[in-house]
Amino acid sequence: MAIVVVGHKNPDTDTIASAIAVADLWTKRGMEAKPIAQGEIAPESAFVLEKFGFSAPEVVTDATDKQIILVDHTDLSQSMDNLEKGEIVAVVDHHKLGDVTTPNPLEMWVWPVGCTGTVIKAMYDFYGVEVPKNIAGILLCAILSDTVMFKSVTCTDADKKAVDELAKIAGVADVMALGMEMFKVKSAVDGASANELVFRDYKDFDMSGNKVGIGQLEVVDLSMLDSHKEGLQAEIEKVKADGRHSVFLLLTDIMKEGSEMLIASDDVSVVEKAFGKAPEGKSIWLEGVMSRKKQVAPNFIKAFEG
Amino acid sequence: MAIVVVGHKNPDTDTIASAIAVADLWTKRGMEAKPIAQGEIAPESAFVLEKFGFSAPEVVTDATDKQIILVDHTDLSQSMDNLEKGEIVAVVDHHKLGDVTTPNPLEMWVWPVGCTGTVIKAMYDFYGVEVPKNIAGILLCAILSDTVMFKSVTCTDADKKAVDELAKIAGVADVMALGMEMFKVKSAVDGASANELVFRDYKDFDMSGNKVGIGQLEVVDLSMLDSHKEGLQAEIEKVKADGRHSVFLLLTDIMKEGSEMLIASDDVSVVEKAFGKAPEGKSIWLEGVMSRKKQVAPNFIKAFEG
Repeated sequence: MAIVVVGHKNPDTDTIASAIAVADLWTKRGMEAKPIAQGEIAPESAFVLEKFGFSAPEVVTDATDKQIILVDHTDLSQSMDNLEKGEIVAVVDHHKLGDVTTPNPLEMWVWPVGCTGTVIKAMYDFYGVEVPKNIAGILLCAILSDTVMFKSVTCTDADKKAVDELAKIAGVADVMALGMEMFKVKSAVDGASANELVFRDYKDFDMSGNKVGIGQLEVVDLSMLDSHKEGLQAEIEKVKADGRHSVFLLLTDIMKEGSEMLIASDDVSVVEKAFGKAPEGKSIWLEGVMSRKKQVAPNFIKAFEG
Repeated sequence: MAIVVVGHKNPDTDTIASAIAVADLWTKRGMEAKPIAQGEIAPESAFVLEKFGFSAPEVVTDATDKQIILVDHTDLSQSMDNLEKGEIVAVVDHHKLGDVTTPNPLEMWVWPVGCTGTVIKAMYDFYGVEVPKNIAGILLCAILSDTVMFKSVTCTDADKKAVDELAKIAGVADVMALGMEMFKVKSAVDGASANELVFRDYKDFDMSGNKVGIGQLEVVDLSMLDSHKEGLQAEIEKVKADGRHSVFLLLTDIMKEGSEMLIASDDVSVVEKAFGKAPEGKSIWLEGVMSRKKQVAPNFIKAFEG
């Protein structure tokens, strides 16, 4: 049976592109592997896959009796059902180390860079396997997406170098034009329900025993969301009511380089604890904050610790 | 403040050599680092360090306010005190993934090979840093030690290749002669107390909520231990009485390629569950079993799960 390669729930472009690329690399290393996803792909990913000639990975959510490679996550809450009934043989990631454990030794490639795609590019080089042209294209888009076209504080020189090299392989002459095209697809909000928007890029965390959800919408201009805010606020209140302590939704303006955060919480004081500034009503402007992973989740984790 | 590089409690040669080598590599990558240890080094490690001109790393056990690189472990029970009050910036290991988590992204190099030293050799190559001659010597010894001179089931082709390359750098002409010399030092039991022998290479595990200790003594001939067995049995009973469900001591004959396991347990049936064979009295012969990590700990973890 082929090894399955899987990213986190609510797949984004990095999770999808990484699953496809790692499955290719493992297969070429002599261990047959196939990419899967834990859910339907988002519009941005659909645009990227179509552009480079891939179809969406099959949706599979149960790990029982499977050999598994985790990409782009190491948190149980973001992973497959019954993970302990499968066997994790490898992990490729760029996040904090989560609570996944294994009974057996495994292979792990984890770097503190902006995107799993950057790690995977280095792995192809390490194993002496050529990156296929179309895989270079999707990895390139994954890095542009995760680093918000190099503007995120998570972006490193390694990410920029990987994009340079992948663009040459993929034959992409204007990387930034491709990035803008992709972000316009990602930003498209009209026609989407509030529920779809909240879960477009959403993660649940366990913070000192509290279930906390953080979603993020990145737009090229925040005013695009003006007519949606009321509906989004109502939606996160509903999500919070379903067993969570708090749900936060980051509305990130990638041009202004900051985020408005909508708040639904049992205890709003965690926001001031996390950011040193009290919210006005149910939202707060966070200047310079673009990264959930590096600028938002760690602050809340500390705030919940005390 | 320099980053500290630390291996597991009850340091063995892999943990000590890996801490020294990773500190060297990180420093040469421009991030000053120094090796430390969680306890006094064992006779085998003292022999290896002296042979290649190193002194034992300083003993430090508290992680508070330190930047830390973990080598050769990812289990909280095997790591420093107050680990959550320090910041883990990297992990280099070859074991199962344990319960250490981090609030921030980090660098991880974990491979399913016989020794952390093998991973570190690849890291030097990856970063284009030359392995110093004396560090090649201690990494080589670490691999010979962890793989029981290539006889352990944990040994892979990558370990053998690393030894070949490290031997050339270190100028070691007869690798197996060096290995035998090292194992004779390791096997020396006369003059050591039962307590010293039990803890020479000992680890505590959390198995489904039960604290379980597993120690291992490797000797070139099991009969060397005949006069010690009674004292060792009494000693593991004492260690078990200190809040543990079970303590097992593997007496591994590296020439016969098998282990006699001494047993102190609240429920001896876990041994039969783990190995499909009932012990005779308080010990059992396990043919072909030489690796705690791959042939013993996983079996007990499963046995304790039900």
